[in-house]
Amino acid sequence: MKELRTEILEVIRNSRRIVLAAHIYPDADALGSELALGEILTALGKEVCLYSEEPVTHILDFLPGSGRLETTLPPLSDFDCAVSLDCGDRHRLGKAADSLLTVHPFIVIDHHAGHKDFGDLRWVDAGRSSTGEMVFDLSRRLGVDLSYEAAYCLFAAIVSDTGSFKYSSTTAYTFHVAGELMKKGVKPQEISGFLFDNFSKNRLQLLQNVLATLDLYEDDRLAFIHVSREMFERTGTGSADTELFINYPRSLSTVKVAIFIKEVEANVIGVSMRAKGECDVARLADGFGGGGHRNAAGFKIIGETIHSLKMKLLRELIPLV
Amino acid sequence: MKELRTEILEVIRNSRRIVLAAHIYPDADALGSELALGEILTALGKEVCLYSEEPVTHILDFLPGSGRLETTLPPLSDFDCAVSLDCGDRHRLGKAADSLLTVHPFIVIDHHAGHKDFGDLRWVDAGRSSTGEMVFDLSRRLGVDLSYEAAYCLFAAIVSDTGSFKYSSTTAYTFHVAGELMKKGVKPQEISGFLFDNFSKNRLQLLQNVLATLDLYEDDRLAFIHVSREMFERTGTGSADTELFINYPRSLSTVKVAIFIKEVEANVIGVSMRAKGECDVARLADGFGGGGHRNAAGFKIIGETIHSLKMKLLRELIPLV
Repeated sequence: MKELRTEILEVIRNSRRIVLAAHIYPDADALGSELALGEILTALGKEVCLYSEEPVTHILDFLPGSGRLETTLPPLSDFDCAVSLDCGDRHRLGKAADSLLTVHPFIVIDHHAGHKDFGDLRWVDAGRSSTGEMVFDLSRRLGVDLSYEAAYCLFAAIVSDTGSFKYSSTTAYTFHVAGELMKKGVKPQEISGFLFDNFSKNRLQLLQNVLATLDLYEDDRLAFIHVSREMFERTGTGSADTELFINYPRSLSTVKVAIFIKEVEANVIGVSMRAKGECDVARLADGFGGGGHRNAAGFKIIGETIHSLKMKLLRELIPLV
Repeated sequence: MKELRTEILEVIRNSRRIVLAAHIYPDADALGSELALGEILTALGKEVCLYSEEPVTHILDFLPGSGRLETTLPPLSDFDCAVSLDCGDRHRLGKAADSLLTVHPFIVIDHHAGHKDFGDLRWVDAGRSSTGEMVFDLSRRLGVDLSYEAAYCLFAAIVSDTGSFKYSSTTAYTFHVAGELMKKGVKPQEISGFLFDNFSKNRLQLLQNVLATLDLYEDDRLAFIHVSREMFERTGTGSADTELFINYPRSLSTVKVAIFIKEVEANVIGVSMRAKGECDVARLADGFGGGGHRNAAGFKIIGETIHSLKMKLLRELIPLV
């Protein structure tokens, strides 16, 4: 485990105004880490701007403080430092990347394996379960007693990025942190309820539609599911409703790699990939301009159909499984 | 949290031959606790008989040491004490209950809320996530350093009974124990893989079929799903494959009561019910000759069809939600 650099603590302590950003299309680790750090810095008397390119989705608006997110940036010259959370790459900061990176010092806190360096001061540790776990450490080092709200956001971050302590990124230290967060009053069943049992009738219909697309290849070692615009329209759902659907093909005992192809907009396809064991999907995602972890990666692509992309991925994947 | 009674430690320390038993149709908590305690007592130089009414199923045979289970009891007069694990009731010991209870002292270790007293020395704590968590404490108090195999079984016990740290029974101490078990080399992803990612292609097809039957009533407060013989036949699955399917209708944010009607055999219908909040489905199940807890109950019935039973249940349920 990599220790937090002392310079990062010093910069934060000496800053009065701080801007925070997580990766675009944020998951609970990105957003939970940003919101928790917002709470921590506010407790230290800092003025904080919690930037997010898009407003929070209905899937994550249960996170305390999500109403504090701002979708427009104030003049960036006013800030003494910036912190990006859970961003493996400067492009994952979205449209505001260039503007945000004019703030110095720019601090980077991330746990992505394929992290590509950016910013001024980096604390990148691929051995961590989640960025949330790192923000917990940061709060300790800053001497801030976590509020219930911050603990809640960090617990959600950890639970989400470890699939509720199931993924290989889970360490003994992850459990230690989870136990400490519970001591702040966090209730696992409540957060898991929001993260995992947050189905609408429409979402359940979408799941049924998506499961019907299951296709298996290579003696069931390779699984594909997909969702089309037409399915979203028919069930009155959107891309956010497909959160965690990838776990269904992944859960097949025979499967080594599971792929979820999403027609997120006309002409725009998003792909989520999950691998078990030795298969490395981050490299594959990288080849398509995306990124992620060895066992969980993804990318977005324009000008492909679900079918044409599936054929391309099949060619790449068959030698891997 | 209730502390382990010192008499129990003394009896175990002074015994040379010990017989262990878990509840019938054992889950991972029952069997994991029994196998781990077997390991612990063997490490203390005891002769141990690990009794189980039935051989281990293919779902749990990944637990290390499951080959040590014995389905026939040796002469019970040879034992200095017996320990039952995760048994809420003497009847849950199965056919051998009367014979086993001739062994004295008979120690009972359990965490069920509705525990009905039996045996001679009881350590019953409904505040625990699992019996596995209690066996961890027992190992500490006995001064035994857990083997990798024992830690593996206890981790499986805890993960299984907390739904991977999601249920309200999960405490900060549960996380502490999980962290300690990881220090023995246990890999969460491996155990979760066996417990949760054990879907077959056929089971996923069955899920898709069952989700298609979702019907909602009373402003979506009441949800029904069902499975027919025809679906089992078409997908090559059986009743055991529907485990946890009830969680899908239950997961709908609007739902107060979720009902799963299963045509388990020709003319035999099984019903699982889940309620949230104040709704009491145990009473309803009782009226049909079944039973269970307030929020989770069920029954079996002969001579009804899926449709006729649904109509009967609807009449009973509408006033409740």
